Amino acid sequence: MAVNLRSPDPRSLFPIDGVELGWAEAGIRKPDRKDLLVVRIDEGAAVAGVFTQNRFAAAPVLLCREHLAANKRARALLVNTGNANAGTGEPGLAAARASCDELAGMIGCDARQVLPFSTGVIMESLPVDRLIAGLPQALNRLAADHWSQAAETIMTTDTVPKAVSRQVRIGEKSVTLTGIAKGAGMIRPNMATMLGFIATDADIPLSMAQRLTQHAADQSFNRITIDGDTSTNDSFVVIATGRGPLRIESESNDLYVAFRDALTDVARGLAHAIVRDGEGATKFIEVRVEQAASENEASRVAYAVAHSPLVKTAFFASDPNLGRILAAVGYAGIDDLDPARVQMHLDDVYVVRDGGRHPAYREEDGQRVMKNSEIVVRLQLGRGEAATAVWTTDLSHDYVSINADYRS
Amino acid sequence: MAVNLRSPDPRSLFPIDGVELGWAEAGIRKPDRKDLLVVRIDEGAAVAGVFTQNRFAAAPVLLCREHLAANKRARALLVNTGNANAGTGEPGLAAARASCDELAGMIGCDARQVLPFSTGVIMESLPVDRLIAGLPQALNRLAADHWSQAAETIMTTDTVPKAVSRQVRIGEKSVTLTGIAKGAGMIRPNMATMLGFIATDADIPLSMAQRLTQHAADQSFNRITIDGDTSTNDSFVVIATGRGPLRIESESNDLYVAFRDALTDVARGLAHAIVRDGEGATKFIEVRVEQAASENEASRVAYAVAHSPLVKTAFFASDPNLGRILAAVGYAGIDDLDPARVQMHLDDVYVVRDGGRHPAYREEDGQRVMKNSEIVVRLQLGRGEAATAVWTTDLSHDYVSINADYRS
Repeated sequence: MAVNLRSPDPRSLFPIDGVELGWAEAGIRKPDRKDLLVVRIDEGAAVAGVFTQNRFAAAPVLLCREHLAANKRARALLVNTGNANAGTGEPGLAAARASCDELAGMIGCDARQVLPFSTGVIMESLPVDRLIAGLPQALNRLAADHWSQAAETIMTTDTVPKAVSRQVRIGEKSVTLTGIAKGAGMIRPNMATMLGFIATDADIPLSMAQRLTQHAADQSFNRITIDGDTSTNDSFVVIATGRGPLRIESESNDLYVAFRDALTDVARGLAHAIVRDGEGATKFIEVRVEQAASENEASRVAYAVAHSPLVKTAFFASDPNLGRILAAVGYAGIDDLDPARVQMHLDDVYVVRDGGRHPAYREEDGQRVMKNSEIVVRLQLGRGEAATAVWTTDLSHDYVSINADYRS
Repeated sequence: MAVNLRSPDPRSLFPIDGVELGWAEAGIRKPDRKDLLVVRIDEGAAVAGVFTQNRFAAAPVLLCREHLAANKRARALLVNTGNANAGTGEPGLAAARASCDELAGMIGCDARQVLPFSTGVIMESLPVDRLIAGLPQALNRLAADHWSQAAETIMTTDTVPKAVSRQVRIGEKSVTLTGIAKGAGMIRPNMATMLGFIATDADIPLSMAQRLTQHAADQSFNRITIDGDTSTNDSFVVIATGRGPLRIESESNDLYVAFRDALTDVARGLAHAIVRDGEGATKFIEVRVEQAASENEASRVAYAVAHSPLVKTAFFASDPNLGRILAAVGYAGIDDLDPARVQMHLDDVYVVRDGGRHPAYREEDGQRVMKNSEIVVRLQLGRGEAATAVWTTDLSHDYVSINADYRS
């Protein structure tokens, strides 16, 4: 079902010096599937993360925040699928702590150097014994070229593993970035997506890593939505091992922007992959809002359109019932919006001029665009210079089927 | 498909002295269906309305506001289905004006005493010639006992006509109230629902009618949601003909609250009927939020739950995947929410205690409630005294089918 998205060729995923990945079939929820991932990080890496703003943040998210705040350099990521360990109260926190303790003992580091991540069903107890029992198998499999298997391990309702890898030259130095992510549903990231991990061999300070992580998330995962549901477990982590030749010490360095762009490009590739593989997705839609008075305003309009079930079902049906988009613009909460200044294009088709149907607009033209699998909705508000884009999917029968059956 | 909702027995709908209703098959969008309604109101009635807050408000909504502001006593409502006359710019406004002019000429009143309403597809030109050609037929059929046919005439994707009628005694005087409404999709009213009309024979001042209309809307139509899409055409009108024995001159009168409650009861009956007949609905769900710090906060949490596609698909599947409700509470935008103070009941089942799964909660108990067609979700936030309730439906395959096929 995924929209123009294929499994990455494992040979296209560059290893990152200083990072090894191993998986296990721990039987967290179901037997005989990869559901446990360990990412071992060499000493001295700069590791930073951004996490969900959901107030019911999962136990592993709470622990990640606590461990990163302790200012120890992270040495491992520990990821399980099949159980979100969210809405689980104190016992959930204790389970997450126990899993960090065990892994720390096995690899020889402080428990606060382990960052835990969980994804799956909310409000069920984490089977921590099975998780811990799976750790030796995962450690036995640690290798630098296991990115493809790692991407498979973190899938839930994803239909395609998601990985992006780049090798670029920045100021005569080569830098490598490789990332994986999982998505599919409960996707309206707020600070980060469900799970996304990018590693690079660049050598950067920890404080810069944190700002770069935030920037990349804002330009990628924080601009996608599938169903408007912000997860309890969203986490995005960047690991900079410092083992490669590129070293950036300050943000005033000429190389900084080039590296930031490369990182953002990988993050955006992963974010787009999540949308393309959104639950039930048959279309990949970019909602671009221009001429807004502020970026916040542009964002509100873009999300109103991207979340409207009526707009999304019209895309699913390839029905150019485009008045539904205007209705969503109208309820986006801009009190002083002047409809007479609003323009709308669907790809190259000028649909709405000055708030009403363009006299030259013909339904056949709208129909032609709606049949595409990739569509850009461009809205101009006539209020200012700010702009944004968000990426989303249509709403199909399969979305309902997947979410009505998820636990069965 | 409607949830525990049947067509009203025409004999249960009391006529209102001073109001007559007539319909026509004007062929606005399709031939041979009732699609034009005229409600003729005797002189001297107090008529008040509340309208959508959508900035792309339809031409008829703009005209209703203009006509009511002119402070002329309304003498007729003119309603068409099949075309929303929204996103139609100046030509749409001219078409709505022409229809009011014609009807005013036929019944002998000022054009500003006619209130127009449209519902149907957005961004298509209103076929005003066909509408005007249908007026004589509608006027020929004017009669006080045509409420049932009027309810049928204003249906679009509704599967059941919606009407509520009450005769109550207030301070020894009898008062009659009869109302009709249409809903089905693009339902997250903001000030009023798609179309709702209530008439009463009470004798009340115009200013009181306006405040009562707002109050009734706030307690009914403004608390329902099907898909979160606020329509361009929401309109709710109350007609008080003053022909009955009940007369209320001031809001300090003892009878005022009793009458307000009777009016609100009728409005809530219509609003619930709209939810029960929501597009694809198989469940009627009340989301009740208690112990909030403010009513606004309670409302935000209630709507976050009521709009979550994941929560709605779980209800459709009768799957007690109730962690999805906690996730929605968590992203409702209350920054200082303490999860450890949150309690959740599903009907009589205590599911979440102090932010985590209740130790005594058994999935069978949740399952039992989820199978019901009417369910109350009760959330206590542990922050204050404010409370609210909103009413919504599940999200089913039929919602997608209906909205993917609506125009075909």
